[in-house]
Amino acid sequence: MTISDPVGPLDRALAHADSDTDAALARLFELIRIPSVSTVPAHAADCARAAEWLAAALVELGFEASVRPTRGHPMVVGHDRTGGGPHVLFYGHYDVQPVDPLALWNTDPFEPVLAPQADGETHIVGRGASDDKGQLMTFVEACRCWKAVTGSLPVRVSVLFEGEEESGSQSLPGFLDRSSDELSADVVLVCDTDMWDRETPAITTMLRGVVKEEIEISCADRDLHSGIYGNAARNALQVMGDIVASLRLPDGRVAVGGFYDGVSELPDAVKAQWQRLPFDEAQFLSDVGLSVPAGEAGRSILEQVWARPSCEINGIWGGYMDEGFKTVIPAKANAKISFRLVAGQDPDAVRVAFRAHVVARLPVDCDVTFRDHGGSPATVMPMDGLLLQRALGALTEEWGTEAAIAGTGGSIPILDQFKRLGMDSLLVGFARFDNRIHSPNEKYDLSSFQKGIRSWIRILAAFATK
Amino acid sequence: MTISDPVGPLDRALAHADSDTDAALARLFELIRIPSVSTVPAHAADCARAAEWLAAALVELGFEASVRPTRGHPMVVGHDRTGGGPHVLFYGHYDVQPVDPLALWNTDPFEPVLAPQADGETHIVGRGASDDKGQLMTFVEACRCWKAVTGSLPVRVSVLFEGEEESGSQSLPGFLDRSSDELSADVVLVCDTDMWDRETPAITTMLRGVVKEEIEISCADRDLHSGIYGNAARNALQVMGDIVASLRLPDGRVAVGGFYDGVSELPDAVKAQWQRLPFDEAQFLSDVGLSVPAGEAGRSILEQVWARPSCEINGIWGGYMDEGFKTVIPAKANAKISFRLVAGQDPDAVRVAFRAHVVARLPVDCDVTFRDHGGSPATVMPMDGLLLQRALGALTEEWGTEAAIAGTGGSIPILDQFKRLGMDSLLVGFARFDNRIHSPNEKYDLSSFQKGIRSWIRILAAFATK
Repeated sequence: MTISDPVGPLDRALAHADSDTDAALARLFELIRIPSVSTVPAHAADCARAAEWLAAALVELGFEASVRPTRGHPMVVGHDRTGGGPHVLFYGHYDVQPVDPLALWNTDPFEPVLAPQADGETHIVGRGASDDKGQLMTFVEACRCWKAVTGSLPVRVSVLFEGEEESGSQSLPGFLDRSSDELSADVVLVCDTDMWDRETPAITTMLRGVVKEEIEISCADRDLHSGIYGNAARNALQVMGDIVASLRLPDGRVAVGGFYDGVSELPDAVKAQWQRLPFDEAQFLSDVGLSVPAGEAGRSILEQVWARPSCEINGIWGGYMDEGFKTVIPAKANAKISFRLVAGQDPDAVRVAFRAHVVARLPVDCDVTFRDHGGSPATVMPMDGLLLQRALGALTEEWGTEAAIAGTGGSIPILDQFKRLGMDSLLVGFARFDNRIHSPNEKYDLSSFQKGIRSWIRILAAFATK
Repeated sequence: MTISDPVGPLDRALAHADSDTDAALARLFELIRIPSVSTVPAHAADCARAAEWLAAALVELGFEASVRPTRGHPMVVGHDRTGGGPHVLFYGHYDVQPVDPLALWNTDPFEPVLAPQADGETHIVGRGASDDKGQLMTFVEACRCWKAVTGSLPVRVSVLFEGEEESGSQSLPGFLDRSSDELSADVVLVCDTDMWDRETPAITTMLRGVVKEEIEISCADRDLHSGIYGNAARNALQVMGDIVASLRLPDGRVAVGGFYDGVSELPDAVKAQWQRLPFDEAQFLSDVGLSVPAGEAGRSILEQVWARPSCEINGIWGGYMDEGFKTVIPAKANAKISFRLVAGQDPDAVRVAFRAHVVARLPVDCDVTFRDHGGSPATVMPMDGLLLQRALGALTEEWGTEAAIAGTGGSIPILDQFKRLGMDSLLVGFARFDNRIHSPNEKYDLSSFQKGIRSWIRILAAFATK
């Protein structure tokens, strides 16, 4: 391609994207059909299959690409050296969340469908349609369009796909360390975040970290009959309830000692910017059947979900959970509990404080075991920089609306790993708030997919500008 | 038989019991092999099969017996009119508790085995080995022995077996009402309780009632991603934890408003009698891996489990409960919660108070649905009466140790139904505290079975005394 005059080829690449939608969707559907659930060991072969599929897709585009085994699920690495200018590393993940409760899905989660909506939008429905298969494919398809019309990419591109993002990215730090020479680039591009709203694209610069813990509380050495032991024997589920209740204060604050140590108040300027953003608090909640924010009293929802740490009970199980009734005093109770962290919080310190909180509330005769399911600190991106500005410009051009600079409550733990290798990350995503990621009936808007491809086509062109 | 001189036939009946153990065990094992779990709909056919098996066993003994269908699991009714004197109605239940967690069983719960113990005892291991198949078969086998040596029974005997005791005895009240003429007797004999200790037989005169409830708490209209909604969205499992924690005060009292209304302090005389009983509080708890009673501070364990009402969390489930981790904010949380009641408490009033307690603690945006799993009031038996005294005498004779008059923390809700028909019940059981009923590896001591049969042989003879 001719870097000095990108307008001709850019328009042709965009036109190619517009004419190739059906084929691009067919490719995305193939990927969604692979049930690459990384947290469920039985799906390990499916994860490997998804990796092979992506490597083959990159090779087809002329990338030098391969599947790289790890102790967990494999990585996919690809390089294209047809472009000059800045070197970008695109990161995405091919693994998806489990699909339970399956009964709440309207269609097979791994048989994607197009569902036309009353508002004229069409949804791509399936597990991973948004998170992250639909999102990562916007970049792959953008590369395909450039290759189709110019035979090359506007800039030098490397790609890294992992299969453990939903299960803690255990293999990634070691892999990055071993591959730092190969993967070093000027910037990391990540497509795993939301648009600001249907019309407004966004680049996310502030992400919460996470700490994930599983606990098992044990009391008696066996389940007991409440007729014989009721009152006298410690009930593990009662203990679990007491501990869960102790984690949040009535005003919404997390009650773990020292939890807020190091957490700063949001700068007034940022708070003011967020207040100017077109954000309807009532709508945000009513979209999911709620009306009142459950977090710290007196803080806006955007503050609660972007700038304040949280504690969530992700699962509890114990005792008799089947049809009918069993008057058992359960000997064991289990829970999965996680914390979202903000800048200034150390995941290790939060984990230690949580465990101390639990141990301090454990009655006599009870034991607890903890299981570390991973964690990562929060990340704050530098708000200036040429590539950020060019990406914002390209997005604004594609969407016809000034692109927003946003925070997000979610964690992309690997940003911290890229930072260790000296790379900042640009988070450009086309998902929407109502995509039901991690929930039944996950969807990706067809327009997210189409304009996402077009956005990356423009961003790559913008990066190549002399 | 000759009522006027029962010594000869009594000794012969006892001798027959001693020589027939292997065959009696084979019959019990047949019954245990039928997985008649009444709370699990998939086992309905097994419940019917257990009923047929018992009816056939009674017919074989010369009873006029049949299976009586109900809307739930069937009844078995049998009559033998070969004896005179008082008319007794023996009640037992052929249904058993579910077996989960199956992984904790050392042997197949429905393939009974004899397990010799280091202390010389032999355990009959299997679901229902104690509760209530092993127990009810002591009576059936006692009848068999009498029939074998005299061709008749010492008194007039009717039998009623039901298959819904573990699931709330839904069909029993209506069935008793419809069959009151047929089933009216001078006394009901029930074999579903414990010995006092290994050496001391017991007749139970005080039983707790029960109220069983299932609740489902709903917040958002779908499961949410904690990255997007964490803090702002109400977490159904957090709400459940808060509610569970609110049910018990730190001193062990149940915190539901009005819960103790109508509950009397134990009379000093009874309290003194219980203090004289050979009962080792430390041993009772250490047998199941505990050391400190969890109920109301300042009350003895026997008071806590016999004479004080309780609240137990029998099961909780919600959110992500599988391998790995999912940072979901669950939209729903479920629990099974039950109360043990004592004399003076009305099950309906307790249910209403519990529901009000939950509703009062429900945050905005949350709903709760309640499901009634049945209930029954506590029962207190009259402590005098000729048949009680004769049964105590027969037990003392068999065991060589003065029989105890005891309470029990368990519920046998149907006693209340028999009382409505004008019949008191004598609760004579041979189970032991450590039988693990409702738990994995349920067992019945072989000596319970053997001496249980001999005890009923003696009790029937004692009832026939002029």
